[in-house]
Amino acid sequence: MRSHQALLTDLYQLTMVGGYIQAGKKDQRANFDYFFRNTPDKGGYCILAGLADVIEYIQHLKFTRDDIDYLRQLGIFSEETLSYFENFRFSGDLWAMPEGTVVFPQEPLIRVTAPLPEAQLIESILLNVMNYQTLIATKAARIRSVAGGDPVIDFGMRRAHGPDGALMASRAAYIGGVDATSNVAAGHFFDIPVQGTHAHSWVVSFPDEEQAFRAYADKYPDTCLLLVDTYDTLKSGVPNAIRIGRELRARGHELVGVRLDSGDLAYLSKRARRMLDEAGFPDAKIVASGDLDERIILSLKRQKAEIDTWGVGTRLITSYSSPALGGVYKLTALDEGKDRMVPKIKRSDNPEKITNPGLKRVFRVFDNKGRMRGDVLLLQDEPVPSKESFQVFHPMLPHLFKTYPKKFQIREQLVPIFTAGRLTYQGPAVQEIRETAQKNIKHLDFAYKRFRNPHVYHISLTRSLFETKQRLLREVVTG
Amino acid sequence: MRSHQALLTDLYQLTMVGGYIQAGKKDQRANFDYFFRNTPDKGGYCILAGLADVIEYIQHLKFTRDDIDYLRQLGIFSEETLSYFENFRFSGDLWAMPEGTVVFPQEPLIRVTAPLPEAQLIESILLNVMNYQTLIATKAARIRSVAGGDPVIDFGMRRAHGPDGALMASRAAYIGGVDATSNVAAGHFFDIPVQGTHAHSWVVSFPDEEQAFRAYADKYPDTCLLLVDTYDTLKSGVPNAIRIGRELRARGHELVGVRLDSGDLAYLSKRARRMLDEAGFPDAKIVASGDLDERIILSLKRQKAEIDTWGVGTRLITSYSSPALGGVYKLTALDEGKDRMVPKIKRSDNPEKITNPGLKRVFRVFDNKGRMRGDVLLLQDEPVPSKESFQVFHPMLPHLFKTYPKKFQIREQLVPIFTAGRLTYQGPAVQEIRETAQKNIKHLDFAYKRFRNPHVYHISLTRSLFETKQRLLREVVTG
Repeated sequence: MRSHQALLTDLYQLTMVGGYIQAGKKDQRANFDYFFRNTPDKGGYCILAGLADVIEYIQHLKFTRDDIDYLRQLGIFSEETLSYFENFRFSGDLWAMPEGTVVFPQEPLIRVTAPLPEAQLIESILLNVMNYQTLIATKAARIRSVAGGDPVIDFGMRRAHGPDGALMASRAAYIGGVDATSNVAAGHFFDIPVQGTHAHSWVVSFPDEEQAFRAYADKYPDTCLLLVDTYDTLKSGVPNAIRIGRELRARGHELVGVRLDSGDLAYLSKRARRMLDEAGFPDAKIVASGDLDERIILSLKRQKAEIDTWGVGTRLITSYSSPALGGVYKLTALDEGKDRMVPKIKRSDNPEKITNPGLKRVFRVFDNKGRMRGDVLLLQDEPVPSKESFQVFHPMLPHLFKTYPKKFQIREQLVPIFTAGRLTYQGPAVQEIRETAQKNIKHLDFAYKRFRNPHVYHISLTRSLFETKQRLLREVVTG
Repeated sequence: MRSHQALLTDLYQLTMVGGYIQAGKKDQRANFDYFFRNTPDKGGYCILAGLADVIEYIQHLKFTRDDIDYLRQLGIFSEETLSYFENFRFSGDLWAMPEGTVVFPQEPLIRVTAPLPEAQLIESILLNVMNYQTLIATKAARIRSVAGGDPVIDFGMRRAHGPDGALMASRAAYIGGVDATSNVAAGHFFDIPVQGTHAHSWVVSFPDEEQAFRAYADKYPDTCLLLVDTYDTLKSGVPNAIRIGRELRARGHELVGVRLDSGDLAYLSKRARRMLDEAGFPDAKIVASGDLDERIILSLKRQKAEIDTWGVGTRLITSYSSPALGGVYKLTALDEGKDRMVPKIKRSDNPEKITNPGLKRVFRVFDNKGRMRGDVLLLQDEPVPSKESFQVFHPMLPHLFKTYPKKFQIREQLVPIFTAGRLTYQGPAVQEIRETAQKNIKHLDFAYKRFRNPHVYHISLTRSLFETKQRLLREVVTG
């Protein structure tokens, strides 16, 4: 992400910048909201991740001379536009929900208020980074939710979408609740615990499985976890592991366990458990891997599979069953003079594609047991409802409204990150973000977390925002 | 991919290296094959891509002092192992099929013959890069196959898995047959044509759609393609585009076309086509985008949608309907002394998971019309069948064999890339790789290219390889 980072964008961002400059809109301030309309896997929530990379990108965003030369020879940019790129520096405001926050469709997760060309120039990379990391953190949280207290390890690097993708995904997976990763670079960069043992190739490279296991135990007597499915799990792998376990014990060490990587994991894990128990290794762990995801883990748990630790690869790192988060970045307000931001709307025949206009704040409502009860969007300049009950509205339907009682607590969700181009936020370490995510999830009722038809978390508008939206819709439609 | 590249690996590669050193296997040569077992989307073929990045990685693979410090504090590596990492340099041989080659399950696409620890250390990144790029090139080829002669543009950057992922995927998509990309960095790095116009935000940032279109036309009179769905495609967008088209024409320019990004693309494109035609703009193009993939494009074509150019994003760049290629890297031969590479096998109850043993070559068989008829795996040291008919066998089933007539041509598929650690291959430019892919696809019968139940391309073994495999299987099973 270091080199040519300014060009990591869609061409239309650059052509629009050229257009804004020509149309005299270079300094016109606009507000853009980042939000998504649907959750992956039709789940009830997402775990927000990626802000640290967005911050780093904005801080270092700079067009090099080489970038400018490339853009010049495309023949579509004026020297004035090229000079704008050359001198580019982000001077806007950016607010965001902290990483690890539990978030929902249709609420602004990041808010960028900046001159039009600046807001436009950060769009593509912001979407790229936030969509991907939020996708993977969310998948990890779903997997975490079924694994209970069992350790979950990210084994996905070899199936991630690019080396960088693997690094980002391992970070996001950790935030979402995975306990460790096989990705050493992610371990180093983010101080995530790393884990791993050996592959089939280790076994095949020795004359037989027993010799392979023995050599591994010689080298790693205290972290010896043996992969038992190279030839035949129950006839060869587990018996050889037990033999080596006995040798280890005779030398004062204990076998950590075995790993199953293929076959019927429910059946094999129960048989392996019994064999290990009967041989005097009740504490040896059984690690399972091989195309696991939250639904398969749930199914294995229901079958009472004897699995202690879950190695999750492909289906975590690509969010296989739902491999994209469709987050978007939409203009919601525009300075039309006198420094007044005027709310704007994008209409659509599809109600969920109609944007929520204006410069907005987001408050999260908690009941007196600390449970999340809903999020409320309000216009930046309206008074914050405090210590009073307050009425809120469905984003589109006027007959759906409700009143939050005054005993409920509210908490502002968007925090300032950049102010007039200056970074004013110190992001927490990834470990702290992970804790935030776990705490957030704890405050969310199970109804929102179940996989099938989760309850829809309420994102409501204040009366003022609701009325602004309805008015703009009428104006756009008839106008 | 530049920094900490040596740590972009799975921890078990490093622990295995430590183990190989302790077990006296530091210099033992082994052969590993990279291959996949199943195609994405149950298709009939894949387009190989990613070799250039693998080459760059191997050339620059180096553990920094910082990497070593990190590994040391993990407390699992001896100083001998750390010193091995510190002095690491790839000294092996690597053969590969060129990028752009049409490839099939179960054949070796890359072959690495090197001391065990070296072969192991490049595994994770090789898999990561090859799996991802091959996945996306293949998806692009499928999309290309239904788009016919229509231009296809990659719009996927914002939904790609990471910034790096976007760059790699844009390259791979171009190789697979996409014509242009919105990703400016990919345009710059790989000299891929870049394209793009404007977003909804452009329209919303003006007092109305007509003014927005006029401002865009003023700036880009000769590349004016207008997004017409911000408010209402048929009532507002297309009529405004026609108005601006007339103004452009009066000034001696021509409207390039309109872009549809939502709604019923079949219906809207036909209506828009008629409106444009009746207004005197029969040459204005209609570009469509919005969650397109090969199946939706095929369906739109069957509905006779009036779409000239296809913008494909999310579903291309993530290979949405099949977001991972499960390529693996398996040990197939081992030097057991006297510099003789002994074939090795990994067995499984699942026949497709049984590896093809040995150091192998791959020949592609063409009939006298130049059509691909099958690929043949043979052992490195057997004579190449030439100018004679030859018998080949199914990879597992002894009763399935056939004879290729002598009039058929054969071509060796694996070419040397690294020889004793020295790069001996000059990879072609991405444009040339793209041509290779298109030529390869042309030589493949339609039966292998259809989406539903494509014909299975035959990967066969010579008698000698078949017999070696059967013998090893018997030894392993009874052993």
